[in-house]
Amino acid sequence: MTNDPESDLAATVAAVTAGQIRAGTRLISRIERGDDGVTPILRALFLRGGHGRVIGVTGPPGAGKSTLINRMVGHWRKQGRSVAVLAIDPSSPFTGGAVLGDRLRMGDHSGDPGVFIRSMASRGQLGGLAKAAGDALTVLEAMPWDVVLVETVGVGQNETDVMRHAAAVVLLQTPMGGDDIQAAKAGITEIGDIFVVNKSDHPDAERTARYLEDMLALSQRLHGDRPWHPPVVRTRAASGAGVEDLAAQIDRYFATLAAHPELARARMAERVRHRVTEILRHQLDRRLKSEASPLLDPLIEPVLSRQRDPYAVAEELLARMFA
Amino acid sequence: MTNDPESDLAATVAAVTAGQIRAGTRLISRIERGDDGVTPILRALFLRGGHGRVIGVTGPPGAGKSTLINRMVGHWRKQGRSVAVLAIDPSSPFTGGAVLGDRLRMGDHSGDPGVFIRSMASRGQLGGLAKAAGDALTVLEAMPWDVVLVETVGVGQNETDVMRHAAAVVLLQTPMGGDDIQAAKAGITEIGDIFVVNKSDHPDAERTARYLEDMLALSQRLHGDRPWHPPVVRTRAASGAGVEDLAAQIDRYFATLAAHPELARARMAERVRHRVTEILRHQLDRRLKSEASPLLDPLIEPVLSRQRDPYAVAEELLARMFA
Repeated sequence: MTNDPESDLAATVAAVTAGQIRAGTRLISRIERGDDGVTPILRALFLRGGHGRVIGVTGPPGAGKSTLINRMVGHWRKQGRSVAVLAIDPSSPFTGGAVLGDRLRMGDHSGDPGVFIRSMASRGQLGGLAKAAGDALTVLEAMPWDVVLVETVGVGQNETDVMRHAAAVVLLQTPMGGDDIQAAKAGITEIGDIFVVNKSDHPDAERTARYLEDMLALSQRLHGDRPWHPPVVRTRAASGAGVEDLAAQIDRYFATLAAHPELARARMAERVRHRVTEILRHQLDRRLKSEASPLLDPLIEPVLSRQRDPYAVAEELLARMFA
Repeated sequence: MTNDPESDLAATVAAVTAGQIRAGTRLISRIERGDDGVTPILRALFLRGGHGRVIGVTGPPGAGKSTLINRMVGHWRKQGRSVAVLAIDPSSPFTGGAVLGDRLRMGDHSGDPGVFIRSMASRGQLGGLAKAAGDALTVLEAMPWDVVLVETVGVGQNETDVMRHAAAVVLLQTPMGGDDIQAAKAGITEIGDIFVVNKSDHPDAERTARYLEDMLALSQRLHGDRPWHPPVVRTRAASGAGVEDLAAQIDRYFATLAAHPELARARMAERVRHRVTEILRHQLDRRLKSEASPLLDPLIEPVLSRQRDPYAVAEELLARMFA
């Protein structure tokens, strides 16, 4: 490393795009620490293009996500594809890379240079984790991984925001009893591109899968004919049953996007719109929440004397943005 | 009610500022539901001025906040002051006003027209609750309450954001053992204007209070001479001991603000800055996250073709805002 920031940037970008794991790991650690100095690097990495094959996997705790992901990684490795997994855990405190957890997660794949597994947690602000996940995915997408997988635990706002970075969302469900099915969120079918009912040997599994299929058919009728009909895949992560089918459905999804450029474009536009909004919020917070805020102070003056209200000031700032 | 929005607005503003509890309650329910139609009313209420005496009470679960607040309300009522309490509970799901909980909370004050107690929860987004609390406080501040109290449970980001709406922050602590004291957050002294160690009969209470006093003295030395030295008050909410002292310290705090206009102004500017930022974030989310976003779409075009990166677009939007 030299002391010249320009050549540092070039060297880091070259190392990451060449697939040097150490360079990628360092960058993700800096993102996790909230180091804003990485932004120029992330900008350069974004422009280098991403393969766009980020697959999100989410679902409630206990649905068997980790086991299933391990199986999927195994399947892809057999096909000769390299895989990076980013596990987002908002519940755990910042652990400096969660090294022990990651080693456990590696499972069968520890020592395989074609597999990269990294956890991310957040200290501080809630909203910050989804933004940091987007930054880390920018790094992983710039590396030559064949598949980039992002996993979240849970179903809160944070998790939904992380999933908005993915090109394809796999939503796991555990078999549900009758009451749980009644209570299932109505909007659930809008979140996933591929649905999975894991633990398919469970007595409630088939009923749950059929219920999801009915909901998806209804949603399809409501929205008119769409090129992609989200399928419901039955898996048993413990035995590996259904994993091949799931991988095939993911490939079929990306093939559908390739065959329908207008759909691919709309999905990508949605991701970019979300990304810009997220970065904007983050920058706005940093600028406005700081003690010294010469930008905002002249606008605040008339509010202090109650000649103006804070809603009006916010509206004016928004209007300026989109003038 | 007529169908003329102008006169509806005028009638609602008149009813709220006159102190009609029903009008205030309805408005808070609309805020809780996320009804954006209330914004013109909130704007008018803000301009009517607020008394600015919003007192925030926060602290960990089990610290005895509810009991202490009940005691404080009793004390103020004896002095002939009317009191409104807004209890923010991010953990509970939306309950449509939490009527049962509020009745329980009313405790000794149920049936007293000089006391108003209202809980607020949030459905949906995390950040939204603090913004909704700010809106509800705008309503309560426009009503002729002598004291407005806002209570949060817990110590997360959401709670901190709610406390930023208060003119005075009372931070409750339970007596801590040696290990807990070691683990106490270093920044804790920056949050409160008045510290309370409740359960003062507990064997660890005095040690905890002295520890806080030491931290506060250190902070005072670091920051130079400030007009207000946060005191540590010992209370026993269960018996009522120390409650008068706490109320006196709150009065002394507001007297200090009155005697130091530059301090009062700085504190108010901080609140307004936070409020504008919060509203701006909220509006930004609503505008940009919607499917149809004609505002953002032209900017997204070059990002889709990777000629530009999302960080650059966010920076441009920010620059426009503060041009």
